[in-house]
Amino acid sequence: MIPVNFNNVKIKIKNIIEHKNLKLRDIGEFGWINRVRSRVLQGRSGILAGIGDDSAWIKSQGSLLITCDLLIENVHFLKDIHPPRLLGRKALSVNLSDIAAMSGIPQYALVAIGFPQDTELEYADELMEGFLEVAVEHKVELIGGDTTASEKLCLSITVFGKPAHKKPVLRSGAKPGDDIWVTGTLGDASLGFELLKKSQTGELDLSDFHHSSLLVKHFDPDPRVEAGIMLGKIANSMIDLSDGLISDLGHILEESGKKTTVKAEVYLDKLPISKDFKEYFKGNPLDDENGLSLVLTGGEDYELLFTAKQSSRSKILEFSRKLDLPISRVGRIKKGKKAEVILRDEKARKVKHPRLKFEHFPSQERQMT
Amino acid sequence: MIPVNFNNVKIKIKNIIEHKNLKLRDIGEFGWINRVRSRVLQGRSGILAGIGDDSAWIKSQGSLLITCDLLIENVHFLKDIHPPRLLGRKALSVNLSDIAAMSGIPQYALVAIGFPQDTELEYADELMEGFLEVAVEHKVELIGGDTTASEKLCLSITVFGKPAHKKPVLRSGAKPGDDIWVTGTLGDASLGFELLKKSQTGELDLSDFHHSSLLVKHFDPDPRVEAGIMLGKIANSMIDLSDGLISDLGHILEESGKKTTVKAEVYLDKLPISKDFKEYFKGNPLDDENGLSLVLTGGEDYELLFTAKQSSRSKILEFSRKLDLPISRVGRIKKGKKAEVILRDEKARKVKHPRLKFEHFPSQERQMT
Repeated sequence: MIPVNFNNVKIKIKNIIEHKNLKLRDIGEFGWINRVRSRVLQGRSGILAGIGDDSAWIKSQGSLLITCDLLIENVHFLKDIHPPRLLGRKALSVNLSDIAAMSGIPQYALVAIGFPQDTELEYADELMEGFLEVAVEHKVELIGGDTTASEKLCLSITVFGKPAHKKPVLRSGAKPGDDIWVTGTLGDASLGFELLKKSQTGELDLSDFHHSSLLVKHFDPDPRVEAGIMLGKIANSMIDLSDGLISDLGHILEESGKKTTVKAEVYLDKLPISKDFKEYFKGNPLDDENGLSLVLTGGEDYELLFTAKQSSRSKILEFSRKLDLPISRVGRIKKGKKAEVILRDEKARKVKHPRLKFEHFPSQERQMT
Repeated sequence: MIPVNFNNVKIKIKNIIEHKNLKLRDIGEFGWINRVRSRVLQGRSGILAGIGDDSAWIKSQGSLLITCDLLIENVHFLKDIHPPRLLGRKALSVNLSDIAAMSGIPQYALVAIGFPQDTELEYADELMEGFLEVAVEHKVELIGGDTTASEKLCLSITVFGKPAHKKPVLRSGAKPGDDIWVTGTLGDASLGFELLKKSQTGELDLSDFHHSSLLVKHFDPDPRVEAGIMLGKIANSMIDLSDGLISDLGHILEESGKKTTVKAEVYLDKLPISKDFKEYFKGNPLDDENGLSLVLTGGEDYELLFTAKQSSRSKILEFSRKLDLPISRVGRIKKGKKAEVILRDEKARKVKHPRLKFEHFPSQERQMT
């Protein structure tokens, strides 16, 4: 365990560890499935058959939102330093974030896990406990999944929900004149992950490190489900920040520009940056090449990026107060010749793009100008 | 490529490889997603938003069947010898098999793939081509997914469908007096996989090997979707054979025995065994310890195991003729003191269970007696 103060993380450790020092293989694949099943309340009337059959069977009416995300050891997390309970939480949270970005109400989840052969039962229990904690917080029911062996730990989560309003918010609705908004602050998760990696190579001693909110943001992101629901009637387009501001704004431009091409202008001085992020860079992080890069292209913040017409400003600020969550206006959608993100400083001068921090298969072609 | 005759595999290679010698990373994560998206017909009216948003959005009414399966390199397949097109086919087929086992009609799929960093674009294209081939065969639409990096190739597929009849067939409906039936033949897939592994260690030369149906069964199982739909009004309980006959029959007994405990009697001389399987063992495979073990406990046959009342026999044999698929009556459900599978030889003598061939986390506790 790393010496981090998880003040922001609601952890209520239940006494679920019955057998110390057992391996997962000691109870077997089906022993494990029964163990998970016994901890899942299958009470919701919409579930006609849950865990324990070839497929889950649920009632459905109207329309359905569905998303899935794969989390893989050494790519998305470092197994030795990511506490299993928090990993379980994150695995579900990042999927809830995708439902939130559609202004959806999450309802059901499936979890497929590839466990290394020598996994401790305690580790697997903690992982599941974290997953179920977030499920309970968001009234999501676990209805099925798969368990298998794997060399590296891998988690594949599928989440279903329903649109909170008549229609969900798509990426494709951004219109010229729309303001661009983001919830929360930018770059914290990727700076947190960078610090963790530095602690692994000995460059940084985390026990001397006090900016725990950065680590919490990497370990235990809070999906903006409530915000997504509130914004559902106001946002013209929405996406969650998983790949970084420029990249995700690029997705909105691409999807929204199928008829009329749109571009985005982003005002650097309006970007929301956390106190801990600023303190780490001792000065304006945007004057630092790495700081600028993390804020604009760091992934995994799981905040919401959305566009809305200018007449919605006061309503959005009212939501911000109700949710006790910063929501910052950071730019503007305009008609453009191509789908590009233009960065401007406080004097409205164009600023060169930093290198992308976050892509699983980095490609030159993709870098936006 | 191994020198196998894939006569049984319908392969229509389209000329989709535009760029030879490119790596996946050369087009980037989003380049890849757009590539897949351009090959998917999003024509079905039920899809309100498909690939290209945070979540897919589909119309739904009535009830929904959902299943997911994780396929991991070196656990479920050997990457160097499993042709990527067939791996793509199998990844979807094993999920369709789960929908078939509920008597469901598959409709939509999500595919999450973790690709090793140095994956060739051609490899990824072939994998997707195989996946989409099976999707087209079964009228399944790809509506979303996730793509990420991974040390080992891993595929997580989620499939949705609807019950073909008013209710799906659950594992829990087996009743005392029911006949036990299986489609197709038993043990071929696991024998095929065993032979492949032997060819890797040099114990067997596959170029001298003529029993290709065994390998095809491992590489490219045919999900029994049509049979599942037909059997939906007749079967009292059903499961697909992924873990092996004894194990999967055990699941039916466990789920069906919640009120009245049931046991199963299986008649060894009635078990359907393929010509190629018999030829490999040169004699009765059930007289061979390994042969017996493969037939009873070998996994991944993806046939249907079901129970039905005795008055349905002629109807089931009629289905068998219509489907041109063997359906064999192999045993009987009885009231019992515990949920056990009893094996009987042709003289009705009890036979000792072989060791289990297929469990991801082998456990002594789980072995049924």
